[in-house]
Parts: sequence; C-alpha cells; structure tokens
Amino acid sequence: MAKVYTHMTMSLDGYIADLNDGTGELFGWYGAGDVTVPSADERWSFQVDANSAEMLREVLAGAGALVCGRRLFDLTNGWNDSHPIGAPVVVVTHNAPEDATKWPRTTFVDGVAEGIARAREIAGNKHVSVASADIARQALDLGLVDEVYVSLVPVLLGKGIPYFANLTSAPQRFDDPVVIQGRGATHLRYRVRR
Amino acid sequence: MAKVYTHMTMSLDGYIADLNDGTGELFGWYGAGDVTVPSADERWSFQVDANSAEMLREVLAGAGALVCGRRLFDLTNGWNDSHPIGAPVVVVTHNAPEDATKWPRTTFVDGVAEGIARAREIAGNKHVSVASADIARQALDLGLVDEVYVSLVPVLLGKGIPYFANLTSAPQRFDDPVVIQGRGATHLRYRVRR
Repeated sequence: MAKVYTHMTMSLDGYIADLNDGTGELFGWYGAGDVTVPSADERWSFQVDANSAEMLREVLAGAGALVCGRRLFDLTNGWNDSHPIGAPVVVVTHNAPEDATKWPRTTFVDGVAEGIARAREIAGNKHVSVASADIARQALDLGLVDEVYVSLVPVLLGKGIPYFANLTSAPQRFDDPVVIQGRGATHLRYRVRR
Repeated sequence: MAKVYTHMTMSLDGYIADLNDGTGELFGWYGAGDVTVPSADERWSFQVDANSAEMLREVLAGAGALVCGRRLFDLTNGWNDSHPIGAPVVVVTHNAPEDATKWPRTTFVDGVAEGIARAREIAGNKHVSVASADIARQALDLGLVDEVYVSLVPVLLGKGIPYFANLTSAPQRFDDPVVIQGRGATHLRYRVRR
C-alpha cells in the first residue's frame, strides 16, 4: 500500500545540516562507493557502496511524489522542476511564487495535511516522500507519517539544524528498525506506531 | 589494549533522559527479553533478548572502572558503593563529600583528565567506562575517548537531556559502527577517529 515516509541524513547528534545549511560532513556516503545509482535527472548520479545502493534504489523507485517546504524549494530553486527522485514536487507554503508556471511539475499547497493529501493523489500507488525536516515534524505531529528513514552518519557536529526539533506530540514510538549498514551511513528504517 | 568508552541509551532525537531525569521511555530494552544477564550486584539482573545479552555481557565483563560526575553520583547515592557493572567508581568533582568514607570503593578526583587517568590505573588491563553524559562530552573534547557505544531507542522524546550537547571540538568523526539489533534498541559501537 502507498505510504508516507521521510528520509533524511542525520549526524549522530541529530543534525541534518550545519548552521549554514552545509551538508559536507553528512553527504559523503552518497559518493563513498563504486556502485552507480542513477537519479531521475541524467546529469546526477550517486556512487555508493552495494548496501547503500540497495536502499537508495528502493527509495528512488518507490517515490510517487515529494513534499517539501518553501525554504527548501527556494534553496534549490525548486530543483529546476526536476527533482533527482524523479517524482512531482508538492510545496507546502502560504505564498506560492508569482511565477509558479516556471515549475510546471510542481504544485503549491497551503497546509501540511493538505499538501500530503495532494501528494497522495499525485503518487497514486506509489509512495509520498517528505523532504523537509520542518514539514516532516509537522506531519509526524499530525499522525500522517508511516515510516521514518534515517541515514545515520558517524559524526558529531556539535550544532546545526536538528531533524526532530519542536515535536509536540511526543513521545512518538516506532517499531525496531530495519538496519542496512552502508559505507559512511547506517540506514535505519522505522515504522511509526499508531 | 585497555580502552576508554562511553555507553549510553539514547532516543532517536538524541536524549538520554526526559527533563525530570526519567528513563521510562528509554530503558525498556533492559527488560525486553528472556535472557537473564546478571549484574555484579546480585539484587539486580537484566532480562534482555539474545542480541542485547551478547552486547551487555561484553560491556559488563570488560569494565575495570567507571567514571561519572557528581550529579549522577548524587542521583544514585553512589550506587551504594556497588555499581551493577561491578567495577570501582571514580567521581569527577570539585567537592568530594565530607562522608566519602561511606563509599570505600569510590574515588573522588578533581578534573576530567585526572579522573580518567585515575580510572585507567584502577582498571589495569580492563576498560574504563564513562557513565555521565557531561563527563563523556568533556572527555570527547579532550580526545580521551576511544569508543562511543549508543543503544539507540526507537522513540522521539521531543525534549530532554541531550547526550552530546555543548561539544566544542566538533566535528568529531567516527568509523562506521558495529551494529547489533536488539529488541527495543539498536546497539551502535563507534570507534573515535584521531
């Protein structure tokens, strides 16, 4: 069945980027092996170890829509309307850009629940991936997330942008994860308990 | 060779206790199975799954001394001079208690580096376990920790006492971990990179 999941790369102390949005200490695993995993954008591919490749192929193949916030959309210029996951993007925002037609595969929706509902429609039988930490946290609070994937990187950043900050519906309990040890990241896949 | 390690049970969002020092959401794995692992104190034992038992036996058998801070010492009344790990305790504190003779197996030392050095002497060929998060963080900053064990619990607490807060010598990079999936906790054992 189609599910809603969120996948983030996180340091052992819980950060998904440094305070300047830098991911240099975290994203090394995307290039730490010799197995090429193509993205949906032919200009980009990943070079990972065999275990990470298995995880990454599944994530890429399963996604039918991607939900993000306006900040990540702006940071990436909306991935130029072509996210490497190969799926249409739903941006949760109170203010759609005036030139929204520049991103024809991208949908702008006000509200997290509404954005995920729209992404479910777009995804059909495939999965919905929540790509912004802030949206993921709100979706967790609303009980809308089925699985949480964490690629846990063996580094302590000391400070940065936290994955799970400001959760209001805590404690949130998960089942024990499926674990795949990759080179440079431990991939943990948790099912959220209802 | 004798090593210095720290082992803590941590939520997926990085907390080792709630804001009231409660560990109810975290310590479930210590009782989540049917394998009995005796502690050094005959009044206490653990009931864990077979994988966690393997990890726990190694930790219990290897420890030659335990280092903690004054706060944990006070919270536990110094484990009544009989820590379940079965090793003498070194308390890092500026102020040894006036009735220190009530804890004959416990040593009070001023300074983290000094405390770990004293613990190494006591431990001999065995390992030194750092049991307080605050001492572990200072020892990491001083480059005195060889291995970091994390028993990662599938829960988001939202808030609490963080394991790795206020690290100043970041980023700290570790090797990929040895992973043991237990029931209720994923045991991750990291070697600190120099």
